[in-house]
Amino acid sequence: MAPSYKLLYFNFTGRGEPLRLLLAYGGIPFEDNRFEWDDWPKIKPTTPIGQVPVLEIDGVKYTQTTPLCRYLARVLKLDGKDMLEDLAIETAVEMLWDILKTAYERKFEPEEERKKQILDKLHGQMTVLLGKLDEDTKKNGYIALNRITWADLIFLCVYEDLQNFLAGEDPFKKYPNLENLKNKLLKNKNLQEYLLKRPSNTVNTAYDLKSDI
Amino acid sequence: MAPSYKLLYFNFTGRGEPLRLLLAYGGIPFEDNRFEWDDWPKIKPTTPIGQVPVLEIDGVKYTQTTPLCRYLARVLKLDGKDMLEDLAIETAVEMLWDILKTAYERKFEPEEERKKQILDKLHGQMTVLLGKLDEDTKKNGYIALNRITWADLIFLCVYEDLQNFLAGEDPFKKYPNLENLKNKLLKNKNLQEYLLKRPSNTVNTAYDLKSDI
Repeated sequence: MAPSYKLLYFNFTGRGEPLRLLLAYGGIPFEDNRFEWDDWPKIKPTTPIGQVPVLEIDGVKYTQTTPLCRYLARVLKLDGKDMLEDLAIETAVEMLWDILKTAYERKFEPEEERKKQILDKLHGQMTVLLGKLDEDTKKNGYIALNRITWADLIFLCVYEDLQNFLAGEDPFKKYPNLENLKNKLLKNKNLQEYLLKRPSNTVNTAYDLKSDI
Repeated sequence: MAPSYKLLYFNFTGRGEPLRLLLAYGGIPFEDNRFEWDDWPKIKPTTPIGQVPVLEIDGVKYTQTTPLCRYLARVLKLDGKDMLEDLAIETAVEMLWDILKTAYERKFEPEEERKKQILDKLHGQMTVLLGKLDEDTKKNGYIALNRITWADLIFLCVYEDLQNFLAGEDPFKKYPNLENLKNKLLKNKNLQEYLLKRPSNTVNTAYDLKSDI
């Protein structure tokens, strides 16, 4: 029997959306338990280490996004076929996380001067890392290998979050291959179905992938 | 023929030491290319994405610590035997990284008031995460599973770095099972050989694992 999955995360994208997208892509039913920011103090003590996302697999609670993504990727055969393929996939994923981490750092930074410095750092990272990923995508058709892997679904999440964090500056206009990749991925019926029915994002509403379907 | 390994990293522990420890533990010869802080601007443009560590495997340059650790773990059979074991190992690793990330954030924070806030955050994380890992170690004998895995070697690196970052406060005194684990791991001859001969750490010199051998 297929395991049962319950996800617990804020009602926004962030670190929870990669798990939602992987489950949706794989057509795996899951309970998508979302909560609002104000409820976090009540929910925090119910989690294993005070963090979300928490994914319950057959009643056992697991936490930490990247290991859970890798787990689901293996379930869905979106991982590599050998050690070097996995290395390529995971390296791309870490590059994407590096960018997203800086974007969140900027979001939560209270001081204007520092916010500006972090934005400069973010732009620098994007030039190097998105530049490299754009090149790789041009060569391979996908972000890490010449077929879809879990790194592509992480990319889709980072794409959306960056559009929101950098609303107005069209962060992918210099990266046409990544822009094409996003469009290609959004042709997937399972992803479309999930994106069209997901609740609207209560934190970042400037941009929603469903507008590109 | 066994692949050739060349590592490029600062002459300190940080994100490079986990790779050194894994290679050393496995008895795998590698070129340990260390450079001083002042040489970084010269070296940075020679790396694939402006980051170190870089591990050259048979002449191909790879970057990003965690994927490389996982790669070496699989070479050394220090990974899990199935998906749930890998999930347990990787979750422990991410918990250790979370702590180390905050410790580095504090180190590089210039403002005193903020440094103090980050220290509070670090102590909070340690209570939850080291508390959980200490419990798990009590139950299993090792940090993630009931045998040594790559999470234990990551732990050893984080142990040393935390001793340096929090010099004077004996950060592991509340975690006797982690303290015992460190002692148990340091009985390994390959690790001993590496630690005894490695150059002294030019950045953090307050504490060096070799003092515990």
